[in-house]
Amino acid sequence: MEYNFSNKLASLKPSAIREIFKSLSDPSIISFAAGNPAPESFPIKELSMISADIFENSPVTALQYSLTEGYPALRQVVADRLKTKFSIGRDFDSTVIVTGGQQGIELTCKAFCNEGDTVICENPTFIGALNAFRSNGVNTVGVDLEDDGINIEKLEETLKTTKNAKLLYLIPTFQNPAGITTSFEKRKKIYELAKKYSIVVIEDNPYGELRFAGEEIPTIKSMDTEGLVVYCGSFSKILSAGMRVGFMCAPEEIISKAVVAKQVEDVHTNIFFQMLCYRYMTEWDLDAHIETIRSLYRRKCNLMLDELDKNMPDCVKYTRPEGGLFIWCTLPDTIDLSEFTKAAIANKVAVVPGTAFNCDTEAPSNSFRLNYSTPSDEQIVNGVRLLADTVKQFIK
Amino acid sequence: MEYNFSNKLASLKPSAIREIFKSLSDPSIISFAAGNPAPESFPIKELSMISADIFENSPVTALQYSLTEGYPALRQVVADRLKTKFSIGRDFDSTVIVTGGQQGIELTCKAFCNEGDTVICENPTFIGALNAFRSNGVNTVGVDLEDDGINIEKLEETLKTTKNAKLLYLIPTFQNPAGITTSFEKRKKIYELAKKYSIVVIEDNPYGELRFAGEEIPTIKSMDTEGLVVYCGSFSKILSAGMRVGFMCAPEEIISKAVVAKQVEDVHTNIFFQMLCYRYMTEWDLDAHIETIRSLYRRKCNLMLDELDKNMPDCVKYTRPEGGLFIWCTLPDTIDLSEFTKAAIANKVAVVPGTAFNCDTEAPSNSFRLNYSTPSDEQIVNGVRLLADTVKQFIK
Repeated sequence: MEYNFSNKLASLKPSAIREIFKSLSDPSIISFAAGNPAPESFPIKELSMISADIFENSPVTALQYSLTEGYPALRQVVADRLKTKFSIGRDFDSTVIVTGGQQGIELTCKAFCNEGDTVICENPTFIGALNAFRSNGVNTVGVDLEDDGINIEKLEETLKTTKNAKLLYLIPTFQNPAGITTSFEKRKKIYELAKKYSIVVIEDNPYGELRFAGEEIPTIKSMDTEGLVVYCGSFSKILSAGMRVGFMCAPEEIISKAVVAKQVEDVHTNIFFQMLCYRYMTEWDLDAHIETIRSLYRRKCNLMLDELDKNMPDCVKYTRPEGGLFIWCTLPDTIDLSEFTKAAIANKVAVVPGTAFNCDTEAPSNSFRLNYSTPSDEQIVNGVRLLADTVKQFIK
Repeated sequence: MEYNFSNKLASLKPSAIREIFKSLSDPSIISFAAGNPAPESFPIKELSMISADIFENSPVTALQYSLTEGYPALRQVVADRLKTKFSIGRDFDSTVIVTGGQQGIELTCKAFCNEGDTVICENPTFIGALNAFRSNGVNTVGVDLEDDGINIEKLEETLKTTKNAKLLYLIPTFQNPAGITTSFEKRKKIYELAKKYSIVVIEDNPYGELRFAGEEIPTIKSMDTEGLVVYCGSFSKILSAGMRVGFMCAPEEIISKAVVAKQVEDVHTNIFFQMLCYRYMTEWDLDAHIETIRSLYRRKCNLMLDELDKNMPDCVKYTRPEGGLFIWCTLPDTIDLSEFTKAAIANKVAVVPGTAFNCDTEAPSNSFRLNYSTPSDEQIVNGVRLLADTVKQFIK
């Protein structure tokens, strides 16, 4: 049988990261390609104790169908924490639980976009978001990132000239893949532009809690007096990625559309782990736990930067992140990125080529992404040397 | 701010069942409206023991990001069980894990349908599937159900005359809401029609394991020599509904599209509970557990039928199911369904009106759905009497 697939999926390729992830079954390859939290960051003992107690005292609630909006007690503590710690959430907002931050992005796209509409994105940006938009038949238009965030003039030009632009998708804090944090000045300008052009902003913030240097910057959502911002957060990088629990805070009117769309995707998020998150947040010290993760990533990031400083030829430039999971490296124009990535794999070290994060899939790139949260210290030391050796092969 | 929602979501209402479910916070109302498995059906002790062991021996795998396709060991045992027990799955098929059977339906729709395309359904049918199609901007066209399954002549007529019909969605076994099981003869005819008109069939089978009377009938998927059938199954009714773990078995080419679509919806299904399912299937006796659930539902169904026989005026007709979770009742034409449903709630008993399950949301109905798996025995006895009293109010 010859299948006639939908236009929106016919041309969509599986994520390059996921494909690289799969090819890493070879244990001799050191991977800087993943974006996984460090295994040491999971509070295993605490989750295990809570889990045993749930099976003992409330197993039926934890195993039965539940509400699409999420476990009410968890919604409440998440909303409270967003409000008190980050000034996020006004009277018109509502907070619901989703199956990872990824689902929040996809549901927002479904709520606002018809096939053929456009989402404006930072370029480069998170491939999972790009593919969420594409899989809904939506175009993506990229606006270049600078060291302090999106180029504001180009953003306004794009807002002015793009027909049917329905959403502006941003990762203002420790951006994936570029590691860039948008300045407070630019955040204010972005919000003003959103207001001026009446466009809804998705503020994706999976890494916001992982700051290990520099000063906290207010989120765009915290400035949202008009109900323009959909904020997507996640427990993936602070408790467990595999449980798939995230949250959205947005105006109630938007949330009610997202909930209808969520209902038909998965009915609700795994309720057992929603209860686990609630219990962890109310019975243990989440902030103290986050502090230990920050220390861990500060150390790992510094180790990778030290090794890059020591080993990498000067022609390679790289960011010095203040948080998050990634360092963004840029090769000189003389080196072909695709050849380089292949040579690195042959040398037993894997990175993600920047082309994977481009809004325009045909656009070139001479950057690649390094992750320091997943590899061990030994792998960081050895892997950076292998990578530096690979560069030297190309410039000798 | 005035929001401009997508056409596909702008008109979509939250599921009537979910809304009724929410209104049931009044504990004095007896609900026959849900479709929840009986709380006694969860193997709590076994899941608790396995869970403790996972936290002890493989916590990192259980809490870390995983593959979109699902936990490989679970995929294998699910595929093996489908093959050996139900003759499902050929060389060209692949089995993947999804976040409940609901996600399998939605992903298949995304893989095949552009906005404006049509899915042909049994009428009435599962509201979660109808809304999955609608939320993707897809039209639904219903073909009447008869006592032994869909009307074959009308199905062929619909296949012949419907432009851009991309999928045929069916629940051949213990249909929701009508409780009807499609005969073997009709299943063969449906498969022949699918072949003749080159249309892909979604065979949704969440209740197939819950037969407590009559003879097993082969699935349509077991006849699938040409790769025309997407089979959706679930652990919701045999292990736990709240964990949201289901599976799809379909030709590899379709599965690869569904996996791309799944990746952008939730990255992967909760991995801890995938491991829990795998361990339960390999270390405990799933078939024996299913046998106890069947006995439980046989008893509950018979109790409800006995009470209906004793109390319900003759003018009300109802099905005598051989499995599944539902009895379908039909009122005489003289009673207005909407008035009846309201009066029932006033009398402290809730049912789902048949209109909720119509492909054409404006079409009338004089039927309603009763569920016997969720209420206690006492609630079944008292609730049926309240319902019979409600009918008598209308015919006096």
